[in-house]
Amino acid sequence: MNIPIAKNKRVVIIGGGFGGLNLAKGLRNKGFQVVLLDKHNYHAFQPLFYQVATAGLEPGSIAYPFRKIFSSYHNYFFRMANVLRIDTAAHTVNTDIGTLPYDYLVIATGATTNFFGNKQLEQLCMPMKTVSEALDIRSLMLQNLEKALLTTNADDKDSLMGIVIVGGGPTGVELAGALAELKKDILPNDYPDLDMRVMDIHLLDSNDRLLKAMSEKSSAKAQEALSEMGVDIRLGTRVTDYDGQKITTKSGEKFRAAMVIWAAGVKAAFPDGLPAEAIASGRILVDQFNRIKGTENIFAIGDCAAMISEANPLGHPMMAQPALQQGARLADNLARFDQGKQPEPFSYRNLGAMATIGRNKAVTELPNLKLYGWIAWVAWLFVHVAKLIGFRNKIVVLINWAQNYLSHSRDLRLIIRPFKR
Amino acid sequence: MNIPIAKNKRVVIIGGGFGGLNLAKGLRNKGFQVVLLDKHNYHAFQPLFYQVATAGLEPGSIAYPFRKIFSSYHNYFFRMANVLRIDTAAHTVNTDIGTLPYDYLVIATGATTNFFGNKQLEQLCMPMKTVSEALDIRSLMLQNLEKALLTTNADDKDSLMGIVIVGGGPTGVELAGALAELKKDILPNDYPDLDMRVMDIHLLDSNDRLLKAMSEKSSAKAQEALSEMGVDIRLGTRVTDYDGQKITTKSGEKFRAAMVIWAAGVKAAFPDGLPAEAIASGRILVDQFNRIKGTENIFAIGDCAAMISEANPLGHPMMAQPALQQGARLADNLARFDQGKQPEPFSYRNLGAMATIGRNKAVTELPNLKLYGWIAWVAWLFVHVAKLIGFRNKIVVLINWAQNYLSHSRDLRLIIRPFKR
Repeated sequence: MNIPIAKNKRVVIIGGGFGGLNLAKGLRNKGFQVVLLDKHNYHAFQPLFYQVATAGLEPGSIAYPFRKIFSSYHNYFFRMANVLRIDTAAHTVNTDIGTLPYDYLVIATGATTNFFGNKQLEQLCMPMKTVSEALDIRSLMLQNLEKALLTTNADDKDSLMGIVIVGGGPTGVELAGALAELKKDILPNDYPDLDMRVMDIHLLDSNDRLLKAMSEKSSAKAQEALSEMGVDIRLGTRVTDYDGQKITTKSGEKFRAAMVIWAAGVKAAFPDGLPAEAIASGRILVDQFNRIKGTENIFAIGDCAAMISEANPLGHPMMAQPALQQGARLADNLARFDQGKQPEPFSYRNLGAMATIGRNKAVTELPNLKLYGWIAWVAWLFVHVAKLIGFRNKIVVLINWAQNYLSHSRDLRLIIRPFKR
Repeated sequence: MNIPIAKNKRVVIIGGGFGGLNLAKGLRNKGFQVVLLDKHNYHAFQPLFYQVATAGLEPGSIAYPFRKIFSSYHNYFFRMANVLRIDTAAHTVNTDIGTLPYDYLVIATGATTNFFGNKQLEQLCMPMKTVSEALDIRSLMLQNLEKALLTTNADDKDSLMGIVIVGGGPTGVELAGALAELKKDILPNDYPDLDMRVMDIHLLDSNDRLLKAMSEKSSAKAQEALSEMGVDIRLGTRVTDYDGQKITTKSGEKFRAAMVIWAAGVKAAFPDGLPAEAIASGRILVDQFNRIKGTENIFAIGDCAAMISEANPLGHPMMAQPALQQGARLADNLARFDQGKQPEPFSYRNLGAMATIGRNKAVTELPNLKLYGWIAWVAWLFVHVAKLIGFRNKIVVLINWAQNYLSHSRDLRLIIRPFKR
């Protein structure tokens, strides 16, 4: 892979999401050679993908090139690569661009969309776990409306204008809210010859409430707000079938929708080659130092890792905070390992959770405080702008939000596709 | 095509570039039903495509959805369509979404990349006439650099780092300047393990000077500035062959480049079905009212139209200004035609030409004044921001430019591809 051999020990990090990037930053000036491998050449801020999908933000505002981040770091290397396999005996990572030996290896490969084995749903539903997928949702939604104009068949029009979101977690709730606002504020002006009452936004969830990771009160608030905005919420509803036009639920109900966005779950993603004893329930078992079970010098952090304890029998939740915190902790611990010092066990600090629903509407749960409505929405704005990487990104996002807020508009309604190669 | 029949006469405009959009705006409140057909759902500001290609701007900053523009206009319809053929006898336009009758038809289909019949060049070179193509150049450039890191073969590295731009008009000059700045200011920090001296930027032109539509002095200034910035300029040079790795010129010279950007020429693009007498040298012959030769109620404006006169034996230059001015003139004349009044002949007002080369460097030719250096560059900035559609776009572009200028950076170095469907 053409990376110079240094006298420093080499830490190879697979994946530059919240966990991997925070680890890489934390390793600065700790005396390692750091190699980050990622499929993309940028870090993407997943919590705002839903705004890219709904024409509120451009990808450039929420993505940041790794090379720019590392350009001032000493002895850091980035390679764009797909990791195929880990060879724990040879201490190497096998990728589509070659093989790389490691001294320490950290798997921070996150999670991918979980279709629970249903190939038909996987083929026809739209996931939203990459920037391209978010852009693709934007383009398909607009294309379907253009097509809806052309048909006089009521069923076809129903399908083309219908949108089903499967999954009522933060992603599904935020998407549903943003789509409801598009439907109310923007699409009637854009498509005066379409009857927007035909456009149904269905939010389906198999649980008995939305945002099940949050409190019942927050769930109720979110449900109430989305219902008021015209979202059709179906709880206790499982999807069994989708033919590209109609989606069918377990109870036999059918909803017409040419676009189904799948936000119903994620599953850990990681390369082959780990010891069998290290894998359980699809995640990688790690000890309290994030070291993978049955290995000496391989670690896993974030969504793909399960640090199981009495307090956390299922491991930590698959979201940004545990990944960020494990990345920071492991940066420190790798230095300790290397110096023969005792590492410190990871302890998770729950900073809360939040989901925005629409203009002046959000639910924000801090450790000792629950906020709703306008104040929760302002809190959401501040946290998300603060967490974005890059000064330009913060400014451009703020300007887009200010303009969207003041004008009730989203200007990025562009169908851009496809590429030549 | 499901457009309501109105008592007003229907003007169908094919193409929403500078000419078509200006015409559509000019027809407001003139008593017509206006239908705009375009392949894309947005107007794109072509003069800044080169900044999208070189990671300086996002597509959302230079593109604007047609529906947003027309949302406050009465009796305006937009349809996303590919026009297949015009039936002048039946007074209809045949498209991939159906057939549409017209009272007046305006062809504003612009121009497409001209490979002069060389299929091999067409297949392997990168054009830059759409937003997708500009994004594609950005991604390919960055991908090639990622690949260059992986090879130890000097020839391969030469190819992967080499860039050839064919065509020394404004597009080629602006691209070459922006790439030279990337090479100087950004890539050495992004790719410290690549020797940037290996990266050659060649600008090839078959003429004896760059910017041949401008004065000799401006050509010389541009050539001098680009040479100082490290661009290898080859004049009087024709490309005969390209195999994806090496490009060969008529004189037998070879340049290694895995990316060849083709900015060597454009040709008018328009649908079939026009009378044979109306086509000459690949453009549509129009009279001084932009009416197509041999037709009564069909017009052509902009790049695709040739209004030939003694003063303009080749028609007007294929650039934004004639298109904008013809669009405005024709809007007025269509109302006159319709009211049985005498239309006014088009007269072209040459507002000048400009090309930016880099930081504080541009050539700007106004009718009575030639500007160079910093002042020309400021003039270029003002004109381009002023012409962008949309307040948000102007602000976001200004912020990006301010940040790029102050930090010598371009933050949009993202490889985003491919889409699923």
